[in-house]
Amino acid sequence: MFKVKVLNQEVIKETLGMKEVIEAVEKVYTLKAEEKADVWPMIFHEFEPGVADMDIKSGYLKDADIYGLKLVSWYGENNKKELPPLIGTTLVFDMKTGVPIGLLSAEHITGMRTGAAGAIGAKYLANEESESFLMVGTGHQAPFQIAAMLMVMNHIKKVRLYDPVDFEKAKKLEENIKDLLEEKFLSYYKENEETYISLKKKFDVSFEAVENLEDAVKKSEIITTATPSKKPMIMKEWVSKGTHISCVGADMSGKQEIDENIFSSAKVFVDDINQAKHVGETEIAIKKGVIQEGDILGEIGELILGNIKGRNAKEDITVYDTTGIALQDLMVSKLALDLAKEKGIGEEILL
Amino acid sequence: MFKVKVLNQEVIKETLGMKEVIEAVEKVYTLKAEEKADVWPMIFHEFEPGVADMDIKSGYLKDADIYGLKLVSWYGENNKKELPPLIGTTLVFDMKTGVPIGLLSAEHITGMRTGAAGAIGAKYLANEESESFLMVGTGHQAPFQIAAMLMVMNHIKKVRLYDPVDFEKAKKLEENIKDLLEEKFLSYYKENEETYISLKKKFDVSFEAVENLEDAVKKSEIITTATPSKKPMIMKEWVSKGTHISCVGADMSGKQEIDENIFSSAKVFVDDINQAKHVGETEIAIKKGVIQEGDILGEIGELILGNIKGRNAKEDITVYDTTGIALQDLMVSKLALDLAKEKGIGEEILL
Repeated sequence: MFKVKVLNQEVIKETLGMKEVIEAVEKVYTLKAEEKADVWPMIFHEFEPGVADMDIKSGYLKDADIYGLKLVSWYGENNKKELPPLIGTTLVFDMKTGVPIGLLSAEHITGMRTGAAGAIGAKYLANEESESFLMVGTGHQAPFQIAAMLMVMNHIKKVRLYDPVDFEKAKKLEENIKDLLEEKFLSYYKENEETYISLKKKFDVSFEAVENLEDAVKKSEIITTATPSKKPMIMKEWVSKGTHISCVGADMSGKQEIDENIFSSAKVFVDDINQAKHVGETEIAIKKGVIQEGDILGEIGELILGNIKGRNAKEDITVYDTTGIALQDLMVSKLALDLAKEKGIGEEILL
Repeated sequence: MFKVKVLNQEVIKETLGMKEVIEAVEKVYTLKAEEKADVWPMIFHEFEPGVADMDIKSGYLKDADIYGLKLVSWYGENNKKELPPLIGTTLVFDMKTGVPIGLLSAEHITGMRTGAAGAIGAKYLANEESESFLMVGTGHQAPFQIAAMLMVMNHIKKVRLYDPVDFEKAKKLEENIKDLLEEKFLSYYKENEETYISLKKKFDVSFEAVENLEDAVKKSEIITTATPSKKPMIMKEWVSKGTHISCVGADMSGKQEIDENIFSSAKVFVDDINQAKHVGETEIAIKKGVIQEGDILGEIGELILGNIKGRNAKEDITVYDTTGIALQDLMVSKLALDLAKEKGIGEEILL
């Protein structure tokens, strides 16, 4: 029988810190660029269109010696049953022996790696001295995006919060965000005084809920969109020179958050070209002929490795389209397994 | 968090009885025929050709309200590390909510459902009064095949055992088979006296290791092949009229156990037409033009439902090509989860 580590939702929250997750996601982007990792075809099944579906994403990471899969189900009516609509489960295997090594709840990992992804886009594409950040979307993902962004961008002073549906949600997030950041992302580093103090300083910015998106876009140097939107919210003429936009929300065909015309004059980078053009923010821009696949300047891993150039000038508008790849989940799952071992937490079962 | 039942290798052995597994596999064949179940595309990756690979098979069973996947890895050199070469892990989800409900070791389930499959072929295709059974292959699968066959065919008196590589292995199985059947398949029913006695009677047959395959084939009314062979072992001219052959071994392209010319005059049934023609015993017969896909008379589920006819006459030669489908694993996993709940065994974790 095999010893398999089980990391459930609660344990994973104790296990992972955003700083390390950002490092892991950067690492996995470069592994992908170096072809030391690969994703296998995705399985997708709709049990009932618009009501329930599931997908299985899988792949391997040569350097980390693991392979595995994440199964995510979405049951839109689960709320009625007091269950979360989105449920994720990850299985990790040792690539040297094929032995199962970990079973993990995927929800928190997905939140963490998605937050990291949006921030990494800004880290490598935004103007370094950017002081203003606009968060579009105030749902589950917003605190993850904000925490990661404040960790990688050192000059942010002002964070604007915009909700496309309900201004009250933005107001509420404005009230709670400092506590949320403390509880979800800072407290993890309590025992590491140096990191804790440095991050606390980074998180000490002003937050403001905003009602006028046009105005907020014009004033912001970095923008992250993380909504389930299916129509453009941010129009091209609003975007100031020098802005960076990380598009996080679009992860299936038909989703769109920003005016596709923004792509015509922006420098566009993605996490995975194939996914971006099929299910990412880039999909509509390509389908409508605003840009062609060849206009995508490259994948983020190439950028991190320095194989391609990102921003050329302070005035460039840059876009990072992240659809989320299974390798991020695997890499962060491996990080969680390693950290859990180190900390001696998590249950071990015999399979 | 979700309560997930973990059934490891040891617990599953206590949980499952072959009688119930045969019923479950028959059921799943009919669900497939009624389109109340479906398999999704298989993911296959070779880490190193001939040394290590893995596959992910997945699908859903509407009637049983579950979906899930089985990941099987094969690491040919694992023996050197005192690990099994073949390792399987199954994850089962509730189709009504998407919630994970079970994590199971897949090895024993695979053994059980494969044994059941070979026997079900005979149950619906062999002459009912058949008295002689030839088991080709004396490896891990042999006891599963023999136990299931003796459970479904009521007139067997003689079981011949043939090993294509090493007669001594057949001799050894001849010595041990009664104990193996008692320990692995009968003892499960110890508390159910009626079933125990009835099965004990069915298992009371004579076993004989044989060296001459041609002679054994000629004398046997039912034959099951379960070997890793890549060339035909059983020639057409050896097969007597009225024989039924269940081909179990071929489950990937290039594998072959019986002379492809047998297909020209046999009535051929399969578990899944698509898999059979690509990776089953039927593959070579079709590739060499002995038969065409249209000559396959149908899938076993249709036969069980009575939608198609099997054997017409006592003299017919019938072939059942079973490649093994993910739905069998899911159905038997569900059975194991239900039985474990009933018996109050197996660990429960919070995910």
